[in-house]
Amino acid sequence: MTFWLNGEFRDGAAAIDIADRGFLLGDGVFETFLLVDGRPAFRAAHLKRLRAGAEALRIEANIDDAEIDAAIEELASRNGAAAGTASARLTLTRGPGTRGLAPVKSGARPTLLLTAADYALPDETLAARLIVSRYRRSEHSLAARHKTLNYLDNVMAREEAAAAGADDAVMLNGAGRAACASAANIFLIRDGAVATPPLDEGAMPGIVRAVLLDRAKAAGIGIAEAPVRLEDLRDSTLFLSNSLIGLRAASLGEGRRQDEAAQQILRTLKSCYAEALSSDLAKRAAG
Amino acid sequence: MTFWLNGEFRDGAAAIDIADRGFLLGDGVFETFLLVDGRPAFRAAHLKRLRAGAEALRIEANIDDAEIDAAIEELASRNGAAAGTASARLTLTRGPGTRGLAPVKSGARPTLLLTAADYALPDETLAARLIVSRYRRSEHSLAARHKTLNYLDNVMAREEAAAAGADDAVMLNGAGRAACASAANIFLIRDGAVATPPLDEGAMPGIVRAVLLDRAKAAGIGIAEAPVRLEDLRDSTLFLSNSLIGLRAASLGEGRRQDEAAQQILRTLKSCYAEALSSDLAKRAAG
Repeated sequence: MTFWLNGEFRDGAAAIDIADRGFLLGDGVFETFLLVDGRPAFRAAHLKRLRAGAEALRIEANIDDAEIDAAIEELASRNGAAAGTASARLTLTRGPGTRGLAPVKSGARPTLLLTAADYALPDETLAARLIVSRYRRSEHSLAARHKTLNYLDNVMAREEAAAAGADDAVMLNGAGRAACASAANIFLIRDGAVATPPLDEGAMPGIVRAVLLDRAKAAGIGIAEAPVRLEDLRDSTLFLSNSLIGLRAASLGEGRRQDEAAQQILRTLKSCYAEALSSDLAKRAAG
Repeated sequence: MTFWLNGEFRDGAAAIDIADRGFLLGDGVFETFLLVDGRPAFRAAHLKRLRAGAEALRIEANIDDAEIDAAIEELASRNGAAAGTASARLTLTRGPGTRGLAPVKSGARPTLLLTAADYALPDETLAARLIVSRYRRSEHSLAARHKTLNYLDNVMAREEAAAAGADDAVMLNGAGRAACASAANIFLIRDGAVATPPLDEGAMPGIVRAVLLDRAKAAGIGIAEAPVRLEDLRDSTLFLSNSLIGLRAASLGEGRRQDEAAQQILRTLKSCYAEALSSDLAKRAAG
């Protein structure tokens, strides 16, 4: 597997410094891109979020959009992911440090790692089975507002779901309201209305989430950012979103009886997303 | 700098797999040891906490106390830290994984990294200057109950303290009560009584904290584990504890006017800790 580290393509695996603060302290942020024929979807939005995270962490890194684009395309090509869908991950850490929490005062060398992996879209016809996790989403943490390397609670929620034979887990915030799934935003459809937890409830500022909030209204569908109680989830038609799955129907426990109006809304939102994705990729291909 | 990785002494730095889940997801735990003449203080308590963390994360790792002891001693020797005080860090991660949150189902190879670094005790006569951080301690997170790699909120709290010209920052939990400092437990002394936030308020189960809770009573000092409001802190004599600093006087803002009775209690607690430390090291030297 070829990867790209701080501007260089390399092979092998053992490449991260034992003193890297990403490794020692989770001191960094990352993005996961859907690749379509070797091109990253919504690249601009992803890099904007990465830069916002870096700024919140005060990590000074030079990230050049065109360089990242070229590196992703080359990586996809070298790793047999140039056609169809694949995934790429860009990880930025504060780089190697000295002992302890305090960042080095000068001469910081952030780590920027890019990897690519195979990725096949999940079966459209299968709803993701959800459980409610016992692991909480910490809405006051930097890890809720930015896509940081502090993913352990989510890892354990996903593990809990897998152990229960489910696909993913709903994470509740400190107030006991729904925030998200382990690696996806959550939406509910009830009585013709769509809602998703607001960011200050612990929802990740998801790229697909933002696309939907931006585009649904034009398709005649209002999406409210509103606190979501557990009982709201049980009583609604659900779907998840993230950059790799796009939109995926989901069900909690027994799930709701088939609600044709809700299914129609989900189909419309999937179309919104598909159009946004095509438009983004086309713009880039032409650019 | 020589380090020890999965049973082998090595030199250099670039040794961590780019797919290591410690690096990508903060999926691991660690311990920081005070070394005295090359020997780790409270080694048994540290390894017990590490194992508890590994169990909570379901990381299966074979950690042999005698092997860790020998590795630390050898590392200290190779890195010029065999005499006086130094520090060592043992990091355990779930090891390399595939893309995404789900751990690999079989054949996991956890990463166990041991490093040593210089460490000089802080000046006994200087109280640590504290601020109150705007970064919160997430008391529902695994990162509050175990010493995980998810340290970003603490990193930023420490950075905030440094930017304000302070030594450390008090982190409040989601309920707005004091949980800890960025890398230390916090204690307050008021009217002859000592208190420290309980674990379920987000306090790290610190090794020195446990030593004090265990030993203070025999020295005639009761320590209550009780929720601590911010105004309680402002009105008390404070000290911090962690494995490297031991006990260190601290002050928030202007600090409290000198309280001789509180200073006497702090001196007594320092003696308790010093005795426990000597006893632990002597037991080990004899063992």
